[in-house]
Amino acid sequence: MPHLTLDYSANLADANSVGRLCKSLADCLAAQRENERPVFPPGGIRVRALRCDAYSIADGRADAAYLHANLKIAAGRSDAAKKATGDALFDVIKQHFAEQFERHGLALSLEINEFSETGTWKHNNLHARLKA
Amino acid sequence: MPHLTLDYSANLADANSVGRLCKSLADCLAAQRENERPVFPPGGIRVRALRCDAYSIADGRADAAYLHANLKIAAGRSDAAKKATGDALFDVIKQHFAEQFERHGLALSLEINEFSETGTWKHNNLHARLKA
Amino acid sequence: MPHLTLDYSANLADANSVGRLCKSLADCLAAQRENERPVFPPGGIRVRALRCDAYSIADGRADAAYLHANLKIAAGRSDAAKKATGDALFDVIKQHFAEQFERHGLALSLEINEFSETGTWKHNNLHARLKA
Repeated sequence: MPHLTLDYSANLADANSVGRLCKSLADCLAAQRENERPVFPPGGIRVRALRCDAYSIADGRADAAYLHANLKIAAGRSDAAKKATGDALFDVIKQHFAEQFERHGLALSLEINEFSETGTWKHNNLHARLKA
Repeated sequence: MPHLTLDYSANLADANSVGRLCKSLADCLAAQRENERPVFPPGGIRVRALRCDAYSIADGRADAAYLHANLKIAAGRSDAAKKATGDALFDVIKQHFAEQFERHGLALSLEINEFSETGTWKHNNLHARLKA
Repeated sequence: MPHLTLDYSANLADANSVGRLCKSLADCLAAQRENERPVFPPGGIRVRALRCDAYSIADGRADAAYLHANLKIAAGRSDAAKKATGDALFDVIKQHFAEQFERHGLALSLEINEFSETGTWKHNNLHARLKA
């Protein structure tokens, strides 16, 4: 963790473009700092995107597209770190789609949630592999 | 916002049928009224569907299908508006799949959640475009 | 309900493998007992998987894969039942991908959440069909 999940209408972009966006957002998460220390462990970063072939945006006009981003993080980060992270991620998203935003209907959105305390389980070899 | 996300087993319906359902549900959201005013801003409506090719429903019988709907809205709507919205959306879903419900195993469900207050970001030109 | 949703990077496994995992996890949910009674009604079990073609895991290295599982259940189960269910599901997931975990970067995770009380709607013929 952190987990960033994008979902988007298929009329917004092709999978290559969204793949590049995933990498930019992962880099953005890795670059977050508070008191000169990383906010998120690099081995816990997961960014992924779900493409929706069926959708209806606003009044259903054909040129309307959307992308929604949901960041889930463990509890305990400061409000300042959460705000800075959301601002930075959303800037990356807005820049990635700046041209589309000028040309057709587009709704971009981001939310941040904390993992529930009901229970989580992890099994992850990436922390060790990144140190190797 | 509102955001309505469907996910469904691939044995339930083809993408065209689910695309029509998305439009019907978007129209249903746009039609919700309380005190003669729209409950949801038209430019914020996003309905989309995720198709699952891998699944196991109930005891795994091949004819068992499902569709789950998750409506996320900003906090602040009245309980009456939320109940009326859920009832209306779920009626649309039940009617859309009434024939399948008679013929094979089918589980339909809907939940309503409010966006967390941890943080949300928006960048949306559809409000302005709908007024143009 | 219960609803178990998997999402995974396309480099982890093919749809057949994930389909088998869905069935194993559904069987695992059906087998959960507390005080000799089933924890979950068989007709409410829904396991499904979403495949992500665009993703960036950890530092974006090509061999890094992930699978995340989200179990949503109605409120009211005991903490012991929730922990036992999570442990059992996560064991199934770890065993399914044990070979991949040895060979390349892999992050597996599971969380349990309870459905919100804001509202849920259900229409399900599987309870009756399983008794027929």
